[in-house]
Amino acid sequence: MFKKILLALTLALVVLAGTGTCFAGDPPKPDPSGASIGTAADVVNATSGAPSAEDMEKMAAAEPLATKLADVIGHNRIAINMTWVLICGFLVMFMQAGFALAETGFTRAKNAGHTMGMNMMVYAIGMLGFWICGFALQMGGSGGAASLGGGGVLDSEFVINLFGKDFGLFGTKGFFLGNDVYDGTVLTMFLFQMVFMDTTATIPTGSMAERWTMKHFCVYGFFISMFVYPLYANWVWGGGWLSQLGANFGLGHGLLDFAGSSVVHMTGGVAALAGAIAIGPRLGKFRADGTANAIPGHHIPMAIAGCLILAFGWFGFNAGSTLAGGDMRIGVVAANTMLASAGGAMTAMLYMWIRFGKPDISMAANGLLAGLVAITAPCAFVTPIMSVVIGGVGGMLLCISVLFIENVLKIDDPVGAISVHGVNGAWGMLALGLFADGTYGDGVNGVKGAVTGLFYGDASQLFAQLIGITTNIIFVFVVMFIFFKVSNKFVKMRVAPEIEQEGLDMAEVAVIGYPEFSINKTHR
Amino acid sequence: MFKKILLALTLALVVLAGTGTCFAGDPPKPDPSGASIGTAADVVNATSGAPSAEDMEKMAAAEPLATKLADVIGHNRIAINMTWVLICGFLVMFMQAGFALAETGFTRAKNAGHTMGMNMMVYAIGMLGFWICGFALQMGGSGGAASLGGGGVLDSEFVINLFGKDFGLFGTKGFFLGNDVYDGTVLTMFLFQMVFMDTTATIPTGSMAERWTMKHFCVYGFFISMFVYPLYANWVWGGGWLSQLGANFGLGHGLLDFAGSSVVHMTGGVAALAGAIAIGPRLGKFRADGTANAIPGHHIPMAIAGCLILAFGWFGFNAGSTLAGGDMRIGVVAANTMLASAGGAMTAMLYMWIRFGKPDISMAANGLLAGLVAITAPCAFVTPIMSVVIGGVGGMLLCISVLFIENVLKIDDPVGAISVHGVNGAWGMLALGLFADGTYGDGVNGVKGAVTGLFYGDASQLFAQLIGITTNIIFVFVVMFIFFKVSNKFVKMRVAPEIEQEGLDMAEVAVIGYPEFSINKTHR
Amino acid sequence: MFKKILLALTLALVVLAGTGTCFAGDPPKPDPSGASIGTAADVVNATSGAPSAEDMEKMAAAEPLATKLADVIGHNRIAINMTWVLICGFLVMFMQAGFALAETGFTRAKNAGHTMGMNMMVYAIGMLGFWICGFALQMGGSGGAASLGGGGVLDSEFVINLFGKDFGLFGTKGFFLGNDVYDGTVLTMFLFQMVFMDTTATIPTGSMAERWTMKHFCVYGFFISMFVYPLYANWVWGGGWLSQLGANFGLGHGLLDFAGSSVVHMTGGVAALAGAIAIGPRLGKFRADGTANAIPGHHIPMAIAGCLILAFGWFGFNAGSTLAGGDMRIGVVAANTMLASAGGAMTAMLYMWIRFGKPDISMAANGLLAGLVAITAPCAFVTPIMSVVIGGVGGMLLCISVLFIENVLKIDDPVGAISVHGVNGAWGMLALGLFADGTYGDGVNGVKGAVTGLFYGDASQLFAQLIGITTNIIFVFVVMFIFFKVSNKFVKMRVAPEIEQEGLDMAEVAVIGYPEFSINKTHR
Repeated sequence: MFKKILLALTLALVVLAGTGTCFAGDPPKPDPSGASIGTAADVVNATSGAPSAEDMEKMAAAEPLATKLADVIGHNRIAINMTWVLICGFLVMFMQAGFALAETGFTRAKNAGHTMGMNMMVYAIGMLGFWICGFALQMGGSGGAASLGGGGVLDSEFVINLFGKDFGLFGTKGFFLGNDVYDGTVLTMFLFQMVFMDTTATIPTGSMAERWTMKHFCVYGFFISMFVYPLYANWVWGGGWLSQLGANFGLGHGLLDFAGSSVVHMTGGVAALAGAIAIGPRLGKFRADGTANAIPGHHIPMAIAGCLILAFGWFGFNAGSTLAGGDMRIGVVAANTMLASAGGAMTAMLYMWIRFGKPDISMAANGLLAGLVAITAPCAFVTPIMSVVIGGVGGMLLCISVLFIENVLKIDDPVGAISVHGVNGAWGMLALGLFADGTYGDGVNGVKGAVTGLFYGDASQLFAQLIGITTNIIFVFVVMFIFFKVSNKFVKMRVAPEIEQEGLDMAEVAVIGYPEFSINKTHR
Repeated sequence: MFKKILLALTLALVVLAGTGTCFAGDPPKPDPSGASIGTAADVVNATSGAPSAEDMEKMAAAEPLATKLADVIGHNRIAINMTWVLICGFLVMFMQAGFALAETGFTRAKNAGHTMGMNMMVYAIGMLGFWICGFALQMGGSGGAASLGGGGVLDSEFVINLFGKDFGLFGTKGFFLGNDVYDGTVLTMFLFQMVFMDTTATIPTGSMAERWTMKHFCVYGFFISMFVYPLYANWVWGGGWLSQLGANFGLGHGLLDFAGSSVVHMTGGVAALAGAIAIGPRLGKFRADGTANAIPGHHIPMAIAGCLILAFGWFGFNAGSTLAGGDMRIGVVAANTMLASAGGAMTAMLYMWIRFGKPDISMAANGLLAGLVAITAPCAFVTPIMSVVIGGVGGMLLCISVLFIENVLKIDDPVGAISVHGVNGAWGMLALGLFADGTYGDGVNGVKGAVTGLFYGDASQLFAQLIGITTNIIFVFVVMFIFFKVSNKFVKMRVAPEIEQEGLDMAEVAVIGYPEFSINKTHR
Repeated sequence: MFKKILLALTLALVVLAGTGTCFAGDPPKPDPSGASIGTAADVVNATSGAPSAEDMEKMAAAEPLATKLADVIGHNRIAINMTWVLICGFLVMFMQAGFALAETGFTRAKNAGHTMGMNMMVYAIGMLGFWICGFALQMGGSGGAASLGGGGVLDSEFVINLFGKDFGLFGTKGFFLGNDVYDGTVLTMFLFQMVFMDTTATIPTGSMAERWTMKHFCVYGFFISMFVYPLYANWVWGGGWLSQLGANFGLGHGLLDFAGSSVVHMTGGVAALAGAIAIGPRLGKFRADGTANAIPGHHIPMAIAGCLILAFGWFGFNAGSTLAGGDMRIGVVAANTMLASAGGAMTAMLYMWIRFGKPDISMAANGLLAGLVAITAPCAFVTPIMSVVIGGVGGMLLCISVLFIENVLKIDDPVGAISVHGVNGAWGMLALGLFADGTYGDGVNGVKGAVTGLFYGDASQLFAQLIGITTNIIFVFVVMFIFFKVSNKFVKMRVAPEIEQEGLDMAEVAVIGYPEFSINKTHR
């Protein structure tokens, strides 16, 4: 049956795409020299003392040269922003390699091909799902980004009205990136949003590693990229209801998540939790008496190299989220990002050192990531010193959470994905509500004034954050858990025990990870 | 004898370089504060409604401030382009690591040091060859890039006249990057073109892996970087005859290859084909009855990590080929690039899944690359939907080609280089001729109007593409095959059978790839 | 006792940071939309014919539109510089992964987790040390960077007066990145300087690999990042006395080190030398008769991949050191950088080939790095041809030095760190003094005219370079050697012999690098 579904899907895709040029609406818009984006209007909208539109009209007569120059200045301005967003997007895409190496290194040799394969295919599958409808649902009503010179074509949000207020639920424009949204601005936005979504989609491959069928994984990949991620992301970043909590109900600036502690990491971490529960622990992970066996990762250098790649790509993740190279806050964001990672690695190492007598370097590597996840939401709004603190707390939270999930909850999360992304994502959201220092964020989500946390005088921002955290946990967990349970009826989620014993590589992805290296059976 | 050649070469290089400052012509030109590039003239030449040179002269009197500002605006404009091109060039350079890991992972452990070593040394050797004369032959008559503020010093093309038309054959300026071309613009161009050339040069190390002598490889490295690549590249990108097919004979915009499906990938793939034939299959690859043995790659995580690095670097490859961060088409190019890679990975996985019952993840990884190769030529000219289709077809072509080359042609191509780069390079060139949508490319190669493919109404563009594909296959195959055959007389191409059996590492590159890991002999 | 120190340190950090917002001085400065940096003043200070401040005031009345536009132009200008510096900084950070992989690959499997772990933790530890006081000591009196739109808040240098001249010794502003320096410009500078420092800090992990305790390594990490690196860096880059040798004593432009051949690489290399002497050779490295045993690296693909990552990141290292994307010298710098790496790899390969009969690919990989280290100081001041020569000489120096250090000095440097970074760092500093071609560097260190080396007519520049080299060797060696000797009294530097025999992984970092691969004991 699966083969038939596959065939049908393939056919559908081919037909769809083949006829794409027809059904995609209007004919493509011309941009013969790539210069149609970025004009004098972008200077007018610029922030540092630029002339108003009205001024310019008057002055065109008096200063014809300057008026013409304004066009080039606006073009330059948008080019600075677009190149920045693209380069940062490339860095985020590279994080796929980081996740692949980290997860594979922290799991066993017999599944290396499979773990690596999932982390590669999630890029392709997730991207196609996001292209089909994910992007439209997330950003179709977002209005695009002024900093990229347009995107106003993304103008259609499905909204319901409750208590006399509008609640945006999802966007409805941009399916298949048809001709109606075919321009450099929208496609830049698509690229940037896609790689964020893909980070989310890849996180559960960690908690469900070493026992997940490729078939079910493929179904999952389309599901999360087409529906689950885009909905929550719409609510926070696409103009949806969580982002309007400020404008509508006076809760700070509405839910704020600068680069995705909740949108990306909590969504991934909560999905990872649902998946780990649904799929159950690996064979041999828990003894008959319920105590846990350690199953060490097979390739520590690979795992740590993966973590360093993640730390590298994270600069794009956070600093790119200004959507503007001309927003000089990027310096603050980038420095805060790395300071938090240092704090996280340091406290995770010290925690294990003090508690167990040795600096556990694999926990320290995860601490590095924990710090990064935690600073992702607040990175633009807090001081460097608080960034070290936020990251440092994140590293300790990680250790506590990993031990708790394994020893108390008895959930098997091979790479610690739930603790790194879920727990620290929530912590990062809180941290913004606590420590935002009131120096940045004027006008965000349509609310005047800078973003301010509890310790700097605004409790309502913290309240918005709590609503967002709760929403994410409930929405993502419930939807994903139901998805796992229901889809498992149709496509088996977990491999047969003998395949799990033998390793998933040959059975599931038709390769052997290391066909020539002698593998020491005692660690199987 | 080889030692003597080596010594002579070394000496020659030292003497050459040592006297470089003398023979390199004029004394170096001053640019004391790095500000001599990018002036008001670059605004005048800018595309979005900038004033003409004449206008500016008149207005200097009326608007002295604006006139002075124009200088800074022009400087900013060029800086945006130069930083973009450099960063993209860095990303392409990083693809060397991707190729090294992918090729090494897909071959055997006993040759890991050698495969890795070739992929590293091709960077050094190719660069020196390109520095000596490759760059001059390719770009010496190209006129440089206006988007980088100059390069007009590259003004000398060797041209022959046939049928009353000029046929540019090769450039003649820029040897050794002497003082006559010593400025930031030309050197930026050198860097960008060099890393493209090096991609080509490294492709045949895949098809000829596990049996090639380092000596012969070194000779090859200089040959392809000094002569073969630069000539074809000149014809397409350096102002040579293929680029003039439009202006001279009315064939669309002349041969178009936005980022190198033919210039880089077909050249590499066809050279890989010539090499694989010339060197013959690995011992044990084909049985006595002619059927093929599978020789699995020894390190799948390494191979897939390499492919992900390639996908990362490819953003620089394609989006950098605008040679301008201010050309807002970069958003379209980058998004199309990644969409095609998803299409390729997906269809390659599905093809193997449906045909052989399992999703072969190593084929899917190659499918990712196939999609990237295919979109490289048309990426700036097609819609996102067609990009998915082009990549998707590429992934299927890959599978069919790999099976055909191995089972029908009986050619041993250890990593599938011929199918990935050669076959899909040709497909990408065709795809441009078929699907270019008429929205971009005004003025390219001196032809007015946007680039338009067969399905959008211009059959002549497709014809130009066919001429290019044919030219590449014939030129590269003939020259490289003759080179391999002739050079083999002087420097032996293939290692002795006992070395091939033992592994090339110690004999050829004086290291053992993995001296401490126990290697399972059954896979040798 | 160590536990107590740890606890105390942790507590101290937590208290420090927790109270950070109080003791960090003034309240945070607002920058509500990230637009406070980069104004018309930055146009006025721009280099290409921009109007003077006075001019602008006069013209504001006559040309109000142009005057307003000037603000946006200045903002664009700074944005180009800041995005460039940040992206280059990210690339340099990625070099951590390169170092980690190169060092781990070139050492033994039994210590893979430990070597990898040191290279990761040095990022966290070094960053925290630099955050606490390193940055303040280095840059606190530097005046910041005009190209980044400010940083003038870094205005406090401790100076002593000798012979009637001022000698700057260290900065005194910016501790903990408190609120007094909390803006995008300073934090961009912090990020960029931090990743450079961290490169230095990671170099000795190579020469001291496979025998260093984590405890002592942690102490070392704080020491070098808080004190040793910042002091020398202040003298060269922070406005300190070596940079003033030109202005004060007429020695060229004072000590010049464009991107850190001495500041980064010599400091690291000399510290590596002191450490290797202090810690002594690995067990079994030298036989009873004093001859050396070869201890081959366990993973050549990993090592070479690491070197390619380093070559990739080095583009950021060198070209980012303009601190300005608008300084078009970046094209020259980037091309020179890669040309030197090709020269170094080539000559190292040829040297070994000619001398020992085989092209030793691990030496060639180190030759690539040697070329990069050598060009780091002179990259902006020399011609492309001389770059090949400088790199080529570097590759040969490397081979000679590696053999000399091992066979004559009997020092055990597992990865050749002393030769790559120390010896070639010194060569790079000299090369600048010899070959600077008089085309660039007007006004650097307050000295008029372009930078000129001995062969282009200025012997005094070479003299400044010699003073710098000598200072670095004496200062770094003496301080680090004393540090190693004294600290060893309190925290043991070297692991017990049985741990060294067994491998440091489980004992020191609580993991096994490869728990599942069978390790071949003969290579232990």
